Amino acid sequence: MLGMQPKTVFTSNAMACPKPNESGDDMTDFVTIDGNEAAVSVAYRANEVVAIYPITPASPMAEQDDSWAAAGKTNLWGNVPVIQQMQSEAGAAGAVHGALQTGALTTTFTASQGLLLMIPNMYKIAGELTATVFHVAARSLATQGLSIFCDHSDVMAARSTVFAMLFAGSVQEVMDFALITQAATLKTRVPFLHVFDGFRTSHKIRKIVPVSTDDMQALIDDRLVRMHRLRGLNPERPVMRGTAQNPDVYFQTRETVNPYYLAAPEIVQNVMDDFAARTGRSYRLFEYSGAPDPDRVVVIMGSGGETVVETAAALNRTGERVGAIRVRLYRPFSVTHLLAALPPTVRAIAVPDRTKEPGSLGEPLYLDVVAALHEAIAAGVSPLADMPRIVGGRYGLGSKEFTPAMVAAIYDELKTSRPKNHFTVGIEDDVAGSSIDFDPDFDIERDDTVRAVFWGLGSDGTVSANRNAVKIIGEETPYDVQGYFVYDSKKSGAVTVSHLRFGPHPLHSPYLIQHAGFVAVHQFDFLDRYPVLERIDTGSVFLLNSPYGPDEIWDRLPATVQREIIEKGLRFFVIDGYRVARESGMGNRINTVMQTCFFALSGVLPKEEAIAKIKESIVKAYGKRGPAIVRQNHEAVDRALDHLFEVAIPESFVPGYTPPPTVPEDAPVFVRHVTGELIAGRGDTLPVSAFPADGTYPVGTSRWEKRNIAAEAPVWEPDLCIQCG
Amino acid sequence: MLGMQPKTVFTSNAMACPKPNESGDDMTDFVTIDGNEAAVSVAYRANEVVAIYPITPASPMAEQDDSWAAAGKTNLWGNVPVIQQMQSEAGAAGAVHGALQTGALTTTFTASQGLLLMIPNMYKIAGELTATVFHVAARSLATQGLSIFCDHSDVMAARSTVFAMLFAGSVQEVMDFALITQAATLKTRVPFLHVFDGFRTSHKIRKIVPVSTDDMQALIDDRLVRMHRLRGLNPERPVMRGTAQNPDVYFQTRETVNPYYLAAPEIVQNVMDDFAARTGRSYRLFEYSGAPDPDRVVVIMGSGGETVVETAAALNRTGERVGAIRVRLYRPFSVTHLLAALPPTVRAIAVPDRTKEPGSLGEPLYLDVVAALHEAIAAGVSPLADMPRIVGGRYGLGSKEFTPAMVAAIYDELKTSRPKNHFTVGIEDDVAGSSIDFDPDFDIERDDTVRAVFWGLGSDGTVSANRNAVKIIGEETPYDVQGYFVYDSKKSGAVTVSHLRFGPHPLHSPYLIQHAGFVAVHQFDFLDRYPVLERIDTGSVFLLNSPYGPDEIWDRLPATVQREIIEKGLRFFVIDGYRVARESGMGNRINTVMQTCFFALSGVLPKEEAIAKIKESIVKAYGKRGPAIVRQNHEAVDRALDHLFEVAIPESFVPGYTPPPTVPEDAPVFVRHVTGELIAGRGDTLPVSAFPADGTYPVGTSRWEKRNIAAEAPVWEPDLCIQCG
Repeated sequence: MLGMQPKTVFTSNAMACPKPNESGDDMTDFVTIDGNEAAVSVAYRANEVVAIYPITPASPMAEQDDSWAAAGKTNLWGNVPVIQQMQSEAGAAGAVHGALQTGALTTTFTASQGLLLMIPNMYKIAGELTATVFHVAARSLATQGLSIFCDHSDVMAARSTVFAMLFAGSVQEVMDFALITQAATLKTRVPFLHVFDGFRTSHKIRKIVPVSTDDMQALIDDRLVRMHRLRGLNPERPVMRGTAQNPDVYFQTRETVNPYYLAAPEIVQNVMDDFAARTGRSYRLFEYSGAPDPDRVVVIMGSGGETVVETAAALNRTGERVGAIRVRLYRPFSVTHLLAALPPTVRAIAVPDRTKEPGSLGEPLYLDVVAALHEAIAAGVSPLADMPRIVGGRYGLGSKEFTPAMVAAIYDELKTSRPKNHFTVGIEDDVAGSSIDFDPDFDIERDDTVRAVFWGLGSDGTVSANRNAVKIIGEETPYDVQGYFVYDSKKSGAVTVSHLRFGPHPLHSPYLIQHAGFVAVHQFDFLDRYPVLERIDTGSVFLLNSPYGPDEIWDRLPATVQREIIEKGLRFFVIDGYRVARESGMGNRINTVMQTCFFALSGVLPKEEAIAKIKESIVKAYGKRGPAIVRQNHEAVDRALDHLFEVAIPESFVPGYTPPPTVPEDAPVFVRHVTGELIAGRGDTLPVSAFPADGTYPVGTSRWEKRNIAAEAPVWEPDLCIQCG
Repeated sequence: MLGMQPKTVFTSNAMACPKPNESGDDMTDFVTIDGNEAAVSVAYRANEVVAIYPITPASPMAEQDDSWAAAGKTNLWGNVPVIQQMQSEAGAAGAVHGALQTGALTTTFTASQGLLLMIPNMYKIAGELTATVFHVAARSLATQGLSIFCDHSDVMAARSTVFAMLFAGSVQEVMDFALITQAATLKTRVPFLHVFDGFRTSHKIRKIVPVSTDDMQALIDDRLVRMHRLRGLNPERPVMRGTAQNPDVYFQTRETVNPYYLAAPEIVQNVMDDFAARTGRSYRLFEYSGAPDPDRVVVIMGSGGETVVETAAALNRTGERVGAIRVRLYRPFSVTHLLAALPPTVRAIAVPDRTKEPGSLGEPLYLDVVAALHEAIAAGVSPLADMPRIVGGRYGLGSKEFTPAMVAAIYDELKTSRPKNHFTVGIEDDVAGSSIDFDPDFDIERDDTVRAVFWGLGSDGTVSANRNAVKIIGEETPYDVQGYFVYDSKKSGAVTVSHLRFGPHPLHSPYLIQHAGFVAVHQFDFLDRYPVLERIDTGSVFLLNSPYGPDEIWDRLPATVQREIIEKGLRFFVIDGYRVARESGMGNRINTVMQTCFFALSGVLPKEEAIAKIKESIVKAYGKRGPAIVRQNHEAVDRALDHLFEVAIPESFVPGYTPPPTVPEDAPVFVRHVTGELIAGRGDTLPVSAFPADGTYPVGTSRWEKRNIAAEAPVWEPDLCIQCG
């Protein structure tokens, strides 16, 4: 069965991935990494002191930093940075402030409540015009409930600290902006938050052009570094900071910083231009893309900007005239630069914010855009003759998906004479009626993009295997690659869904795969519990890790799965991954087996090359654990292909069973209508009215969720028990 | 010399002070207290748990609370509240959140960085729709320097927590709004920040109508209190809060609160209306006052609103057509209520904010007002046909004075066709050019207001004596009273200037006295050091605590003082306060002596009555220290009048000496031009350019300030020293 063609075949070797830099370096210049690694790679090299405290999703930056320092990796100046974990983010911010006051180049990494704890020190760092960059993997704040996922509530809560804020929208931008902020903070003396979307960007793997040490040395002006040092407190040239000021002078001293903030936007643009001259990657503070004569524009920050740009382009191909303005530099907010990006044909503007401030007239970016256009018109400098229609809205809170369908809905809303203001998109708000509808079937993805979805368990190695697969494809092919992993905050034992894209064209799709050409289900019992085939495309490949062989499996499938396979004309493959792993001496670690099957079925790489690369990566990953482990894994690779079978779809058959409802019929109403839907993976479809207003939930609902996360049941040994708990 | 008439005489007994309540109660219904006491008086009675951590200028609320609890004072329900000081404001916020989760009515008091530490818990308290009121004496944040004084930076930094915010502008409003917020939070389930200006309102003494326990019981709905309790976590009816939410549902659950925020403004107005029905004191969410057909309006929050209203009224008497909109409920921000307050004739609006966010397009209230009017016009519901001119600005940072002259300058600026946007007023910004000029001689105070200024030392009892004088006059006369005390943040040993106003008309003057009818200088050496007579009016009374008698003093005066006495035609009195205190057995405590002289000279009360009241207050203040202390003080009162002498102003004389410059000519340039000006009390006149941009100052400047705060020089006793330091 090998050598078969998957549905989606690369018909071209045309290479339109991120461009190599001007030096004409070849493909080896690419790296395949996630956003956190992109940020820390620059931050590590550009700093001398790093004060940290871990918080999801920023922790990997701190971990990586610490691990490099432990390995003796040096920064731009040949020193190993001092990494210090503090007792909390409040302490980390204090340590950062202290280190900066000695003249050390200093950074930290944080998110969410961690950033909130830094606010008091941030006011002082900014007030003292101190050059530093905090790298933030933006995350929700705990309100009615906690979310470890993405939105901009945290950085918006810190906007009054008047750190500058530069928003990166992709992994490439994270790496580039890590350097641009570092160079700009030294030039402007305004401290920066370098913001990128938690998980959506921090944990997404992309193939990018790395920022080289040469780039860094060219952009970071050593003279400015020396000036930063000279501003450090030093007994040999003593100065006083942190004075107490009476009403006679505080106001005047607070106004001293104005020229620095007024000058900052143009300085940041200059740094971007210098960066572009070296790397060919060009950025604007406010960046327009779309039709040359748009009637409607969406203004947005963060990764959502990629979706808007991509959707605008697709809509324009159908004859619409729309555009997108991506806001990179949010603070200081430059009206001049915004106006320069705004085509004069615009009649309606939507400003979706990824944050919520109930009780405010509108979310922050919306208020800024309204005021900017009002001021421009009042001053007679607006490119628009009249005030356009402007509406604000909310999207993507807590990593809610923000898809092309939702973007299209926003553009549609702007067509109306009185578009809904303060809308939400992506949910059904049947309580306050804020939501606008979208068509979930709207799709703009290119046919030549391979889209593969993998359903695994939090501890079964699916995510690691897929990260590995993305790296292999990124490094061994000219294709652009993208890996995104949906974790449940229940962590170990919970479902993980990996979304992998590969293709000959650049990928700007920061949202989950809506229509997959390949779906692998690594846990057989998921068939009963999750809508695993919901998003698989007609004629695609379905791979199942199954204890049942190709002859037996059909009758073991639930009726719903049988129906989807037939109706969608799927090609259906099975492998008994656990058996192969066991027989190769690997216990229940199926990741190598399943990864091999994916490569075999997807055809992204020629078979022999794929196998060689998998084996190579096994040596890299497990080599230090000894040759036995490597050998077992290599054996699993070889065996996998022998045990991978295509299932013949019967012409006629007795329909399979119907799985029991997720929760029993006798469960309480709330459990059946809400908890059960969450457990079944249908939480996205629940409307606002399904939930309590104040985050108060009934207790005793866990027992309705059969998680079965322990492979073995522990037995209490009274003689050994030290009663630790 | 007693029985003399001061320059400013009450010509009327007309009583236009705050109105007694509808029950027709007489004057005994008034109390003379400061803003902090007004807030805590209500907060104490309305709560069961108070978690505190002291921070200036909110500390007195926590202290008073603690002291009442120690004395066994009970709340509305007959219980003594539990008062608990925590390790920081972060802990206090956590304790508040915890206590609220048990269903206890809970509050706290804070300001500035203290409030910043509460932000993480505030998000949760608000997200869980928990009824509570935090009372905030609004204060600056530490940026380039620390300021313990007033502006709104702290509460603005917390605005994204989406607590509701009600701003009180006067001591009466503080007491009233403490109850209104408490009643409203139970009705709306939205938590409140009750905000009033630090020092300017928190420490100002005013004569107000107290909120009675009957008022409180009428406004606070016991049924809602029971519902609050029932929402508490309780093992007998378990519920779950503080869940972790995945991307499938977080967005929906975040939108559940919308109806509560949408309903809140009208509910707050209803509570205000109920309050008005009981007390006669009526408030609006947005309250217009001024000309019925204004062309210009200033929109403002906090105590500055009183100055704007008072100035608008004065300008309208001269034929202008201006008005003021005081914003009481800032969050949730109700566009509808703002529009309802906006007269249709308005063509230009200024929105001065008492905070600064460099890098933002404009300060928060300005952005809101612009967006509100834009939305109203877009929706066709604006009372104005066109978008008016709207400008934002900054005033009063770090307790910078905000006077009628500055308000008049704002109204003048609005007359121009292109008024300056993002202006500052009250300073000279010669760096970024943001400031608008004002005429310091512009004055609107009524002639029948007694205005007395006292220069004392931080530990000489001047402030206590003046607080006492205000209370006596407030309680014994029908006059409205106001006492405000300018402290130096150097505390003990630094200058204090007391500003006392008394008058037959209501006093709405939350700014320092610009033109005094009485000036007392309690420390002789101040004559050389401060411009003590700078603001004294022609023909006014000047009282000096002087070691030199009436015959000797003239030749001991610096030439500048001699000239001011003559040019302004002052009546000049001396008393050797230290001698009288010493001879009465009171050491160097001159407060009783100087207070007696003030009463004698001001004629606010008939002499005999004044003396009786002073003696009564002495018994009250010192009674518990024993009869000897009381007797000494009473003796000091009697002796004071015997030693108070008017000085005959000579027709011709040899001009006195010129005091040396504040700092010597050989001091460094910065010390002469900046530090020296601060020491001399002329810091207000320094422009922005005088100061370093980043809060970095030269060291070794303290030695140029001769503070001489120790009356005795300590001697080191090696045998006794335990080397504690």
